[in-house]
Amino acid sequence: VDVSEIGEFGLIERLSKLLQAGSPPEELITGIGDDAAVWRAGDQYLIATTDSLVAGVHFLPAFARRRDVGWKALAVNVSDIAAMGGDPLFALVTLAVPPQEDAENLDELYRGLDECAREYGVAVIGGDVVSAPVAAVTIALVGRARGQDGNPGLLLRSGARVGDVLAVTGTLGDSAAGLLRMKAGAPADDPLVKSHMRPRPPLEAGKEAAAIGISCAIDISDGLLQDAGHVCRMSSVAAEIDAASLPISEAVRGAFGEQALQLACGGGEDYQLLFAGPRTLMGELGARCPVPLTVIGRITDGPSRVRVLDSAGQELRFQAAGWDHLRAAQPPR
Amino acid sequence: VDVSEIGEFGLIERLSKLLQAGSPPEELITGIGDDAAVWRAGDQYLIATTDSLVAGVHFLPAFARRRDVGWKALAVNVSDIAAMGGDPLFALVTLAVPPQEDAENLDELYRGLDECAREYGVAVIGGDVVSAPVAAVTIALVGRARGQDGNPGLLLRSGARVGDVLAVTGTLGDSAAGLLRMKAGAPADDPLVKSHMRPRPPLEAGKEAAAIGISCAIDISDGLLQDAGHVCRMSSVAAEIDAASLPISEAVRGAFGEQALQLACGGGEDYQLLFAGPRTLMGELGARCPVPLTVIGRITDGPSRVRVLDSAGQELRFQAAGWDHLRAAQPPR
Repeated sequence: VDVSEIGEFGLIERLSKLLQAGSPPEELITGIGDDAAVWRAGDQYLIATTDSLVAGVHFLPAFARRRDVGWKALAVNVSDIAAMGGDPLFALVTLAVPPQEDAENLDELYRGLDECAREYGVAVIGGDVVSAPVAAVTIALVGRARGQDGNPGLLLRSGARVGDVLAVTGTLGDSAAGLLRMKAGAPADDPLVKSHMRPRPPLEAGKEAAAIGISCAIDISDGLLQDAGHVCRMSSVAAEIDAASLPISEAVRGAFGEQALQLACGGGEDYQLLFAGPRTLMGELGARCPVPLTVIGRITDGPSRVRVLDSAGQELRFQAAGWDHLRAAQPPR
Repeated sequence: VDVSEIGEFGLIERLSKLLQAGSPPEELITGIGDDAAVWRAGDQYLIATTDSLVAGVHFLPAFARRRDVGWKALAVNVSDIAAMGGDPLFALVTLAVPPQEDAENLDELYRGLDECAREYGVAVIGGDVVSAPVAAVTIALVGRARGQDGNPGLLLRSGARVGDVLAVTGTLGDSAAGLLRMKAGAPADDPLVKSHMRPRPPLEAGKEAAAIGISCAIDISDGLLQDAGHVCRMSSVAAEIDAASLPISEAVRGAFGEQALQLACGGGEDYQLLFAGPRTLMGELGARCPVPLTVIGRITDGPSRVRVLDSAGQELRFQAAGWDHLRAAQPPR
């Protein structure tokens, strides 16, 4: 059976079951299934994640500036660390390059990567360069949770509780809108294109959330509905989202009209953070947070699914719940 | 300029220079340039490395069993941790798969990966699955050095001193010989093919070496001469290797005759360890080591290069010093 029939999430589940390498070591706090893995190293809690960008799949070589690809390759990993409430520290960078690739392209990619590393305080400490038919950047990023001995102070997908409110940083849909504009020929400095190619994960918001005792977050990479669905499954809860409350930028509303809601719910790659937590803590986070924080819904009892409600409380339906790169019949991103 | 003109090592040097993300954090002990990076995390010293296997470049899909590819993808990373004197702990696995790939192939790959994880006590704690035109496995592996506060107890490429002897574990050339046999149709259970596809890094030897105070090692991945060259450059020393002393298996001698020496010196992918250290310590290591250890030469003063000497003390010349995957005119491996 082709992997395109199983899809990304089905494949991860299938392959994970094949790993039988004994019981997990006692230092391991969180393994496969959250935004990143966490383990205890002496008196520290360390976090590790990895993400790839493949040419023609995750970025379009004809449109994307290499400098922006370099930024994004690291930023998407920073986003995973932010979603755990941690601080990124060290990166390993694997560059797959066709032998005919112009070295100037790689220089540019590395300059963008360095810009992101400086922005988020990351040191590149190693990596690998391999020959391959298509260009790809794979980064493994290690970070540190803010917790001390006994309490790692993590944001987990499994941390949502019935009665929590859902809140999201920044605005949603800008990245998907930017991809559409980029394909239509918009330049790299178009604000929406920048949202797509140079995401800025709200690291401080994640750290603040962990600091004040919020215990659930996920980053919006696959799309709000799909990512909220991950939280529901991992927390065994349901979620309701109020469509009218979704933070959508004027740029997206102006350019995409009625499509804006669809982009905000299913577009993906916003790399904002979705939190679940008690309303009072969320108010506190909103006051401390250096980025806008908007309450968009609530966690309820019931089967693990996400419903988007209009202002009359009626459920809205969407074409696609989000991205799954392996499934057939999806456009390259 | 094409990257094929610059080569793997030139490209790594070029790109590393573009990273200007401030001064390295004080926790960093060893960054780019050794087998793996090392940093201090509280009272522990942690080690991280990453390595990729790309279909058609690092393995030949038509010949290589997927289960063996899975084993090797992890084993080559274990080798890097072994070369630092550490213990592997946690792996992040990134799988790039064409959408048309048969999921059974990936199952097999994961079974082999799991076998290696069990053998070396590694827990897979996360990863990523991405769509790509060709299959590739990229693993990031975190390990721990045996040292305690104040003394990490590492094996470094820069740790060789004039007067040290050079010693190597196991035998050399089996892997390159196995690749030749595999291409000629030898089955997966041919002993030399197994040496190529299922390398067994001598983890205990690395840990023992660090424990008794040896301070220099590298793993034989690019080929003995090239890897010894890395040690010479990083330690600012020269090396002499006695051709007659090189440990070459009867299988390689029998099947490859005069070519055996060339395979042992330049073949690569043996994933044995090359140590440099005082003769007395090397004797002690040989006695404690669960794998054969052979003294093959010495570290001398002079410009950083490696000379292979025949029994009369005359220098021998070889066609190629080792592998550089990015350079043009090299066969796929």
